Amino acid sequence: MQELQRRREQARRAADEQGWAALLVTPGPDLRHLTGYDAMPLERLTCLVLPADGTPTLVVPRLERPAAEACAPGVALVDHPDGADPYRLLAGLVPAAGRIGVVDAMPAAHLLPLQDRLPGVRWERAAPVLGRLRAVKSPAEVDALAEAGAAIDEVHRQMHRWLRPGRTEAEVAADIATAIRDAGHARADFVIVAGGPNAASPHHSSGPRELQVGDPVVVDIGGTMPSGYCSDCTRTYVLGPAAPPDFADYYAVLQAAQRASVAAVAPGVPAEAVDAAAREPITAAGYGEAFLHRTGHGIGLDTHEEPYIVAGNAEILREGMAFSVEPGIYLAGRHGARIEDIVVCTGDGVRRLNTTDTGLVHL
Amino acid sequence: MQELQRRREQARRAADEQGWAALLVTPGPDLRHLTGYDAMPLERLTCLVLPADGTPTLVVPRLERPAAEACAPGVALVDHPDGADPYRLLAGLVPAAGRIGVVDAMPAAHLLPLQDRLPGVRWERAAPVLGRLRAVKSPAEVDALAEAGAAIDEVHRQMHRWLRPGRTEAEVAADIATAIRDAGHARADFVIVAGGPNAASPHHSSGPRELQVGDPVVVDIGGTMPSGYCSDCTRTYVLGPAAPPDFADYYAVLQAAQRASVAAVAPGVPAEAVDAAAREPITAAGYGEAFLHRTGHGIGLDTHEEPYIVAGNAEILREGMAFSVEPGIYLAGRHGARIEDIVVCTGDGVRRLNTTDTGLVHL
Repeated sequence: MQELQRRREQARRAADEQGWAALLVTPGPDLRHLTGYDAMPLERLTCLVLPADGTPTLVVPRLERPAAEACAPGVALVDHPDGADPYRLLAGLVPAAGRIGVVDAMPAAHLLPLQDRLPGVRWERAAPVLGRLRAVKSPAEVDALAEAGAAIDEVHRQMHRWLRPGRTEAEVAADIATAIRDAGHARADFVIVAGGPNAASPHHSSGPRELQVGDPVVVDIGGTMPSGYCSDCTRTYVLGPAAPPDFADYYAVLQAAQRASVAAVAPGVPAEAVDAAAREPITAAGYGEAFLHRTGHGIGLDTHEEPYIVAGNAEILREGMAFSVEPGIYLAGRHGARIEDIVVCTGDGVRRLNTTDTGLVHL
Repeated sequence: MQELQRRREQARRAADEQGWAALLVTPGPDLRHLTGYDAMPLERLTCLVLPADGTPTLVVPRLERPAAEACAPGVALVDHPDGADPYRLLAGLVPAAGRIGVVDAMPAAHLLPLQDRLPGVRWERAAPVLGRLRAVKSPAEVDALAEAGAAIDEVHRQMHRWLRPGRTEAEVAADIATAIRDAGHARADFVIVAGGPNAASPHHSSGPRELQVGDPVVVDIGGTMPSGYCSDCTRTYVLGPAAPPDFADYYAVLQAAQRASVAAVAPGVPAEAVDAAAREPITAAGYGEAFLHRTGHGIGLDTHEEPYIVAGNAEILREGMAFSVEPGIYLAGRHGARIEDIVVCTGDGVRRLNTTDTGLVHL
C-alpha cells in the first residue's frame, strides 16, 4: 500500500514535470503498477485518473466495484452502470484543455470517445514517462523477477521429458504450457516450439510439424507469476547426437555473442552498446543479416517494456533495470537458433536471472 | 481463404459506405476475423490496411514476417525492421486527409503516433461497422460456438470433482482452468469461483477464501477453442443440502427470468426487449436493484462483442446473432447467483448452445 502510494506520487510528479494536467491509466501493467489492481481489459471503461492536483480516482463499471475495492487500496472509486456514458463521467474529472498523458494500453475503443468528448485536450503517450519509472526495479521487484526466472529455468531443465522426434511442435507446446503453470506461474503467456526450418522464424507459432532427428529446436517460453512479474527464456536444443552441417559453428558464434552482450551490461552503459556487443561478433562471423531483431527488451509486469536493447537507444542503463539479452541467427528455409537470458543491471555489473547453461543441449 | 476474402470485401464495402478512406486493423478478434492471423499484441506495430480502393496490405515487424506469411493468406505484406519508424511506413499507405476507421483494439501506443503523423485525418471507431458484420455468424461459426459451448458444459458437469467445502476458491479455480484446457480449449480465458459473500461481486477474482458448507458459489468460466471461438457459461452451486434462507426463493425468480429472457429471443426482436424480459420478473419480485448489470453480450472470436443485450439498445436481432443471456441477483455482503447460457438467434427463434440444466445443483 505504501509502495503503491509511493509509485503514484512518483508518477504524479513525473507527469507534473511534463506539464500534464492528468494521467489516464486503463487496465494493463501500468494500472497494476500504480494500484495493484489486475483488472480485466473489457469493453466497459476502467480508468485511473491521476490528476496533477487532487485525489487519484478510479472510474470502474458498477459490477466491477466490489473487485476494485478489494484490489486497489487507497484510491477513490466512482462507478458507472451499464448503459450510462462513462466518458462524460471521466471528462468531468479532468480539465477540458491542456495536455493529458495516456498509457500505451488504452484502446481506441476508449481513447476515441474521450477525444470526442474533450476536443480541447492534447493527448500524449505517457509511456516515455511511466516506462522510465517502471524500468528501474526495486529490490522486491528484482526478487519477484528472480523467482519467475527460477520457475522458467525449472521448465527448461525438464525439456527432455517432452521434446522428442515424432511428436508435433503443438503437442510439445501443450505439455510445456502445463509445466509452466506447474512450476508456479499463474499462467503461461507464450510457448514457441520451432523445429527444423521453423526455427528460422523468430516468433513461429507451434504447429503440426513433427520433430525429426537432427532438428535444431528453438524453445522460447514465458509466463506470469502470481506476483504479476513475468518470465521469458529461450534455449535451442538439437534432437539426437548430430546437428545439421554448419549449425554447431554458428551456434558457437551465437553463444559467444550472447555472453559478450551479457558481460557488457553495467550501470552507465548505453542500451545500444549491449545490442552492439551481441551484433558485432555475429556480423564479423558473416551472420549479420541473419540476426533479424533487436537484442532485447525490458521485463517486469509486462513481458515487453522499457528499456529496449536496440541500436539507436542511447538510454543509460541504471541499477535495477531488468531486460532480456537474446541474440538469434536465422537461416531462412533451413534452421536457426536463439539464446535468451533475463538479466538485471546491478550496482557494479550484471546478474543473470536465468541460470541454466547456454551450451547446446542434445536430447 | 475464400471466406476470409469474402469478409474483407464485406468490410471494405461497409467502410466505403461510411466514407472511410481506409480501415486500420491491429491484432485482436477483428484481425483474426479478416485475415485468419492470430497475431500477438505487441509493442511492435502489426496493422492491416484495408483501403477503399486497392490491395489489402498487412504491415508487420520483420521478425513476424514468416509467421504472418503462414497465417494471413491473400494479403500483401510489408515489414519493418526493429529501430525503423513503422508509422511513417503506414502513413505512406493511406491518404493524408479524410476519415479513417480504426478497430477498438488499437492501443494508444499506435493510435497516438499515427495521429501525429497524419494530422489531417479524422479518426473514427470502426467498431459500429465491423461489430455489426461480426455479430451475425455464418453456419460454420455457429458450429464453432456450439463446439465451444459443449466443451464448457463438459467442465460444468464435472464440478463435483473440485467444488468442496474446505478448499479455497483459488484452488478450485486452478483445477477448473486445467479442465477447461482438457475439454478442448486452446486456453482458459477466465475462471470466476465466487463463494458465500464473494458471490455478490459479479466479477469476483477467485481468492484465498475457503468454501463452506451452505455457500452458494457462482462459477463463471470460459476459454478460447483452437478455432478462435469462445465459450462462456455460468452456473450457481450450493455446497451441501441447505442453502441460506431466502436464497432458494430468489434463485427460483432468477431461473424463471433467465428462461423468459432466452424465450424472448427471435429474429426481429430488439436486443433491449431480451434485457427487459429478464429484468421485469426480477424487478417484480423486488430484486431489481440487485441485478447490477446488463443481461448479456455477443460472443464469437471475442468473449464480449456485439450485440449487447442492454436497455437502450434498439438493435434488431437477426438470424445468426450469438450472445449470452445471464441475469444475476447480488445481495451485498451476503451472497448472490447468476445463470448464463450462450444462445443463437435462429430463423424462427432461439437455440441454446449451453445445454446443462439451470436448476440449482447441490454438491
